[in-house]
Amino acid sequence: MKALVTVHYKQGILDPQGKAVQNALKSLGVDGVSEARVGRHIVLQFPEMSKSDAEAQTKKACEKILANPVIEDYEYEMVENTA
Amino acid sequence: MKALVTVHYKQGILDPQGKAVQNALKSLGVDGVSEARVGRHIVLQFPEMSKSDAEAQTKKACEKILANPVIEDYEYEMVENTA
Repeated sequence: MKALVTVHYKQGILDPQGKAVQNALKSLGVDGVSEARVGRHIVLQFPEMSKSDAEAQTKKACEKILANPVIEDYEYEMVENTA
Repeated sequence: MKALVTVHYKQGILDPQGKAVQNALKSLGVDGVSEARVGRHIVLQFPEMSKSDAEAQTKKACEKILANPVIEDYEYEMVENTA
């Protein structure tokens, strides 16, 4: 079992890295981007664990270390390892 | 149209942030994580653009600025804005 976690600033929190990307894209000739937001993507591998157990551990991981709950939101998705 | 881009180190490249997360999780009591990898998740908003145009711009953005092709791989997914 594998957890795919994405962490982004909450809506309304200034995202300076996103702003920098947006400005850089404009000056590099990538057109039409009205907003860019940059966050983190974390992949956790849980070999030999049931989906519900892995999900509980993922939630704990998000709350303890992967996201700052004051300014960030997280989402996660559990997927089977295919390979 | 919205592009969801994920950027991770290529397989085989040492991911120090991932290692740090893995060690921290273990000492915080989150069990069963055999590997953690940390990458970036970027959301680009393309209002008023067709899917194929937005996809072309996203590819250009990934190659020019969002990923370092020497050590990183990127993936992207185009989704309709729902709200």
